[in-house]
Amino acid sequence: MRIDILNGPNLNLLGTREPEIYGSMTLAEIAEMVKEHAGESHQIIFEQTNSEGTLVDLIQRAGREADGLILNAASYTHTSIAVHDALKAVAVPKVEVHLSNPLAREEFRHHSYVSPVVNVVIAGAGPEGYRLAVTALINMTGS
Amino acid sequence: MRIDILNGPNLNLLGTREPEIYGSMTLAEIAEMVKEHAGESHQIIFEQTNSEGTLVDLIQRAGREADGLILNAASYTHTSIAVHDALKAVAVPKVEVHLSNPLAREEFRHHSYVSPVVNVVIAGAGPEGYRLAVTALINMTGS
Amino acid sequence: MRIDILNGPNLNLLGTREPEIYGSMTLAEIAEMVKEHAGESHQIIFEQTNSEGTLVDLIQRAGREADGLILNAASYTHTSIAVHDALKAVAVPKVEVHLSNPLAREEFRHHSYVSPVVNVVIAGAGPEGYRLAVTALINMTGS
Amino acid sequence: MRIDILNGPNLNLLGTREPEIYGSMTLAEIAEMVKEHAGESHQIIFEQTNSEGTLVDLIQRAGREADGLILNAASYTHTSIAVHDALKAVAVPKVEVHLSNPLAREEFRHHSYVSPVVNVVIAGAGPEGYRLAVTALINMTGS
Amino acid sequence: MRIDILNGPNLNLLGTREPEIYGSMTLAEIAEMVKEHAGESHQIIFEQTNSEGTLVDLIQRAGREADGLILNAASYTHTSIAVHDALKAVAVPKVEVHLSNPLAREEFRHHSYVSPVVNVVIAGAGPEGYRLAVTALINMTGS
Amino acid sequence: MRIDILNGPNLNLLGTREPEIYGSMTLAEIAEMVKEHAGESHQIIFEQTNSEGTLVDLIQRAGREADGLILNAASYTHTSIAVHDALKAVAVPKVEVHLSNPLAREEFRHHSYVSPVVNVVIAGAGPEGYRLAVTALINMTGS
Amino acid sequence: MRIDILNGPNLNLLGTREPEIYGSMTLAEIAEMVKEHAGESHQIIFEQTNSEGTLVDLIQRAGREADGLILNAASYTHTSIAVHDALKAVAVPKVEVHLSNPLAREEFRHHSYVSPVVNVVIAGAGPEGYRLAVTALINMTGS
Amino acid sequence: MRIDILNGPNLNLLGTREPEIYGSMTLAEIAEMVKEHAGESHQIIFEQTNSEGTLVDLIQRAGREADGLILNAASYTHTSIAVHDALKAVAVPKVEVHLSNPLAREEFRHHSYVSPVVNVVIAGAGPEGYRLAVTALINMTGS
Amino acid sequence: MRIDILNGPNLNLLGTREPEIYGSMTLAEIAEMVKEHAGESHQIIFEQTNSEGTLVDLIQRAGREADGLILNAASYTHTSIAVHDALKAVAVPKVEVHLSNPLAREEFRHHSYVSPVVNVVIAGAGPEGYRLAVTALINMTGS
Amino acid sequence: MRIDILNGPNLNLLGTREPEIYGSMTLAEIAEMVKEHAGESHQIIFEQTNSEGTLVDLIQRAGREADGLILNAASYTHTSIAVHDALKAVAVPKVEVHLSNPLAREEFRHHSYVSPVVNVVIAGAGPEGYRLAVTALINMTGS
Amino acid sequence: MRIDILNGPNLNLLGTREPEIYGSMTLAEIAEMVKEHAGESHQIIFEQTNSEGTLVDLIQRAGREADGLILNAASYTHTSIAVHDALKAVAVPKVEVHLSNPLAREEFRHHSYVSPVVNVVIAGAGPEGYRLAVTALINMTGS
Amino acid sequence: MRIDILNGPNLNLLGTREPEIYGSMTLAEIAEMVKEHAGESHQIIFEQTNSEGTLVDLIQRAGREADGLILNAASYTHTSIAVHDALKAVAVPKVEVHLSNPLAREEFRHHSYVSPVVNVVIAGAGPEGYRLAVTALINMTGS
Repeated sequence: MRIDILNGPNLNLLGTREPEIYGSMTLAEIAEMVKEHAGESHQIIFEQTNSEGTLVDLIQRAGREADGLILNAASYTHTSIAVHDALKAVAVPKVEVHLSNPLAREEFRHHSYVSPVVNVVIAGAGPEGYRLAVTALINMTGS
Repeated sequence: MRIDILNGPNLNLLGTREPEIYGSMTLAEIAEMVKEHAGESHQIIFEQTNSEGTLVDLIQRAGREADGLILNAASYTHTSIAVHDALKAVAVPKVEVHLSNPLAREEFRHHSYVSPVVNVVIAGAGPEGYRLAVTALINMTGS
Repeated sequence: MRIDILNGPNLNLLGTREPEIYGSMTLAEIAEMVKEHAGESHQIIFEQTNSEGTLVDLIQRAGREADGLILNAASYTHTSIAVHDALKAVAVPKVEVHLSNPLAREEFRHHSYVSPVVNVVIAGAGPEGYRLAVTALINMTGS
Repeated sequence: MRIDILNGPNLNLLGTREPEIYGSMTLAEIAEMVKEHAGESHQIIFEQTNSEGTLVDLIQRAGREADGLILNAASYTHTSIAVHDALKAVAVPKVEVHLSNPLAREEFRHHSYVSPVVNVVIAGAGPEGYRLAVTALINMTGS
Repeated sequence: MRIDILNGPNLNLLGTREPEIYGSMTLAEIAEMVKEHAGESHQIIFEQTNSEGTLVDLIQRAGREADGLILNAASYTHTSIAVHDALKAVAVPKVEVHLSNPLAREEFRHHSYVSPVVNVVIAGAGPEGYRLAVTALINMTGS
Repeated sequence: MRIDILNGPNLNLLGTREPEIYGSMTLAEIAEMVKEHAGESHQIIFEQTNSEGTLVDLIQRAGREADGLILNAASYTHTSIAVHDALKAVAVPKVEVHLSNPLAREEFRHHSYVSPVVNVVIAGAGPEGYRLAVTALINMTGS
Repeated sequence: MRIDILNGPNLNLLGTREPEIYGSMTLAEIAEMVKEHAGESHQIIFEQTNSEGTLVDLIQRAGREADGLILNAASYTHTSIAVHDALKAVAVPKVEVHLSNPLAREEFRHHSYVSPVVNVVIAGAGPEGYRLAVTALINMTGS
Repeated sequence: MRIDILNGPNLNLLGTREPEIYGSMTLAEIAEMVKEHAGESHQIIFEQTNSEGTLVDLIQRAGREADGLILNAASYTHTSIAVHDALKAVAVPKVEVHLSNPLAREEFRHHSYVSPVVNVVIAGAGPEGYRLAVTALINMTGS
Repeated sequence: MRIDILNGPNLNLLGTREPEIYGSMTLAEIAEMVKEHAGESHQIIFEQTNSEGTLVDLIQRAGREADGLILNAASYTHTSIAVHDALKAVAVPKVEVHLSNPLAREEFRHHSYVSPVVNVVIAGAGPEGYRLAVTALINMTGS
Repeated sequence: MRIDILNGPNLNLLGTREPEIYGSMTLAEIAEMVKEHAGESHQIIFEQTNSEGTLVDLIQRAGREADGLILNAASYTHTSIAVHDALKAVAVPKVEVHLSNPLAREEFRHHSYVSPVVNVVIAGAGPEGYRLAVTALINMTGS
Repeated sequence: MRIDILNGPNLNLLGTREPEIYGSMTLAEIAEMVKEHAGESHQIIFEQTNSEGTLVDLIQRAGREADGLILNAASYTHTSIAVHDALKAVAVPKVEVHLSNPLAREEFRHHSYVSPVVNVVIAGAGPEGYRLAVTALINMTGS
Repeated sequence: MRIDILNGPNLNLLGTREPEIYGSMTLAEIAEMVKEHAGESHQIIFEQTNSEGTLVDLIQRAGREADGLILNAASYTHTSIAVHDALKAVAVPKVEVHLSNPLAREEFRHHSYVSPVVNVVIAGAGPEGYRLAVTALINMTGS
């Protein structure tokens, strides 16, 4: 089983950017941790991009090639109907992840274009949220 | 370690109420499944109430007696500042769970008074969400 | 045929509370009048509660035991998604009644969480509205 | 006693227009049913118009000539202050009727300019609603 | 010089409708009073209609045949873009009149589609407002 | 094949009314141009009215007698739920046309009650828009 | 009879400020014109101030000493509850005047705190509006 | 003279809950302090509940049995029309108390259903506010 | 100890302005009553102004010279950020007083720029409110 | 004559993505159909991109090199001011096309940043809409 | 060349008022610094007032006597249409200055009545902003 | 000292795009002018991109490599939370520049996601604004 984990803008700064909100783990360390958790029988593809268009490309690719999709769209969560449409067009199980809890932050992070078109939402659990997302995805696909 | 799992109004109807949204598992079956998942070293207290006041009572009790709190406040999620205030006054780790994904449903289920005052939010994973919540809670407390 | 007639907060004050709006008949007198109107072949269960949770309990009970439900949720009409969800989970025919016409009163009484999930709405007819509701319910069930 | 029953735009299509919402009875059949229900001692005047101005004319005429008024203003319910003002200027008892329950439909059908200026509102009872309206009107006038 | 004075819905009820707001003078008496005030050198055409479409027709006719237009659009003031467009298409001087002061009444009478496309607005002066409007119109045209 | 082309309020002024927005062609000239474009095998019925009620009548008639409907509802586009309901009740293919582009004009012309219940929307192409609408309609019906 | 005519901020710039909106007449010339129109039997007090507090003082003085009040509050019209309260506390007849028509200008000039607490509103008639206001005031007081 | 002092949800946590906002005094200590302040000639009934329904019950009881009512409805202040209606139905003098100043806190604490139906509002004075409320109540009743 | 009591626009009219809302006591009588209540050991400075700028001056002076500040900003409560900023810049204890209860009056009196920057709010207690404010202030400063 | 037809995010999925909304034709097939319709004397450049920045680049290029522009901006229609600004900076005739009718879909697809800055809007005609757009463009340029 | 630098309410408190936001420099020190920067060939008039009316007077005076205007309207920025109108009536180049960045502060400081009617906006640069404003003004006038 | 000056979408069209708003200088000419102004001791990196993702990349690079950042995000100012987040994650001094004054233009340009996370805002000064920004940045860093 292949799982694509896609990360949106500024997540490449993890570990240095506002560590009191996002923690001190880098994105590479999270990728490592998740791959270990998933084990040998599941392939993890881990990507990051600052571009909305590339994120749409990656979601479409996951729809064609992967068995499940985990998305942390970061700020595009709140502004991108293009991401919304791409997710809607993709038939595999989908999990939305956020390191922090957007609903406990600024008003403009309260609305999500992603949540209505995914199966599961996990927010506020920090890097652990990625592991929970993999577990949820595996349960959903019965694999 | 003791974990209190509190369930709000109409969740006692699970299994018969709109099964296309909430699934066919009853609340008792979920309780059973969660206890098994938690294992012997963790005590699970599983409650349901239709009353806002009783829910506040139970949250306060969890604050005094439990090591962690999992809350599916159902419709009080969207209307109860009393629940919000009780959660804020309670120092143990807290996880919000929803069987379905409220953001994919009616407008009036999009706002949450619970999310800003919990550590983790898990929505849309069905009964599995309770198991993920227990895992998240155990990770948080390092127990 | 059993019909449950459920009344929400402050309706126990009928007859003394703002009689220019609600009339001078007490709730007991209305219950009497309705039972007489329903006749012997229909059983009328008449309840009042100030508690949102108890109102949810009573709606669920009506769903299990009664053949029809008449609800005057009073102020919970405007604030309770819990009542909304309970009504949605209940399969018997449902009629909403109001003594006065909420749309001719304050702005905050204009929105209703009850109306979208009942079959019939009757407002402004005073105590007579309860009799009309019983008639409507009997017609609907063909009994 | 004379009762004027006025029907607004598109109600002449009843029976063929969206029967899953409005039922399969034609407006002529409803008129017939209501006249039978009212009996010989009450004269029923039954009108339909697609024009807002004509509806205002008919409401004014009812104010001068009838003893009671039943109005299904259809879509003008939501847009016409002219109908609102005409109703306010008319002293006879007034009942608003809707076949379906507007509050269970699109957002733009939730506001009513009619409800604040009638005595009784009956919605969602289908053609039966007209009969309930006649009963309510007769009770109000004590005739 | 010809002046067309056009009156919208329900103004035919003047004298009997809510006299504490609109006064006890009938529309015919106002017409008489205005004609006297205008004197012999000015022709007054005085019309009333309950229909939005007819009001548009009359505004267009005034644009072709009259030298000035006085409009009391009553409730269409607040809802009719058709009246707005007709006024905009008409090149003669235009005065808006209201017997009462809409801004001191209900919220839904506060917005006006008429005011932005007339030259002068006079509100709250009662029947006297029509005389002031004629004076204003004569001054504007320098006749 | 019969196509009904219905035009709303103030369109009878075309050619003289704000020509910098609506162009200098009269409605009669547009009718002529469209008939020529449609050719002999298609009958064009071309109507204009300032009255909302009459527009509803004409839409209903098109539903009974025509094979397709082209509507320029002008200002009723933005205010009339009656027109919306009539269109919904009519089963033939429907095209909405506007000479100018309402979304490039005042705020109150941005909302449309017509667009959600037609098949095709064409705006801003001037008189040419009517020809495009006929082409679209013929394509849709395959005639 | 004494009439106080009070003018708010920036009206001292009349004649030079945006003459295409406000005309080329100075405030002194308007005062002159109004006094002539009022004649010998009416005393005109004509004031201008840029200060909200002074305007409140002048309104209060008019309540004590004058028989009628004409107010062009200029921009305070839209922001000053103090002016609103002062007008409400003053028992003499009151007329609001605006040289231009605020409802045909920017959005933030559409709301008025003055209109709900005066007897008559006259807008858009230019300097002539002051003369109409004097006439209206004299009619109201029957002097 | 009997004074009922009613306290809403989560106030039983006083002394431990967010002491930087609510202070370190417990509710029992406040009750003690108030009773001492009231002296022997006034009976103080001091209640706390987390339930909206029970709060309505207690307000109704105060209406029947007490001479004055002091209410700290806590979070129900912002959400409960049931409390609003109960207060409106109760004829004794009423004082609203808040320990902190809700208008200086989150947006959702700015609206109050209690303030419009009490005689006096006191907010932000901490436990001292209860003493001020008793003084105000005694002054009002002249006892 | 010196306490500055500052009063905003139109409060100089107390006793004659809408006595059914504000009572029949004049501001001078209130000043007298408050001074007596404060006793010899506290100096009361009592001021009134209709000018927003002067009110800001007085608040700043109180910040430099007084030990406490009581403010009835009247209508500036709802519109003046200048008053808000002045209060924020002043370090002495501050109490907001209103004779009536603004939240039980018009919509535009519901918002307060003063409440978020004072320590205590007292509303609806009439002239007695000034005495309660002095007591609250003395308690706060421990003098 | 050269016409650039630009397509926004997710349109590369046409034919497989929600065929009940978007039809079963692929984007390549539409391109083929349009080129055939345009004939030899018109060059068609057909592009698709998921990136907002690239879409801006392509619009700018069309402004420099093409004689007309047809744009289906898909979801960027509703969110991109960058696209709006690019269109505004481009002097060639512009037509907006949508396969489906956005106004008949979700609320967040109702607003368009594209419509105010194009000449013609065509929506809901499916692939046929591209052909109509080419016709409209050719008519506009008189080529 | 003469430049008038006008400062609004509470800016006389600079140096002591919330120094973490506004810095520790007094207004007099800023005036000194600016005059030095402007040099001998430019005359600087530096004013401060807490009164909205006086600010309008000063803006009008600058329009008559100065060659350029720099305005820090402080809180009147957000509430004063009078200041807006005065600026609009003044033909000299205008620069708006703010010490802090209002858009990074409370919601009610986000709207500006000043920005739409000045040439240049400079915010957040502290006292340095005044120097940048003088430079910008000199560049604009080419002096 | 290195200063990165980043320019968002459509700014590459400067000089030809709406010159009455943006002036006739090209972006290359502005770059030239700014470099000259900065002098030899400051390195200027001048970039332009139409892509949101690339803009985020460039902001992140500036955070790693530059000593200061000047950003004209053009239309992304109003829509991009990604840009907001990138700026927040970057510790160097930041200045926002706009050639025109967005607050004097369309409503949708009034909100800024950039202003709350920069130190200084300069708008409306044309190309000169870039020079002012460099001056401000040099002052801030004391270099």
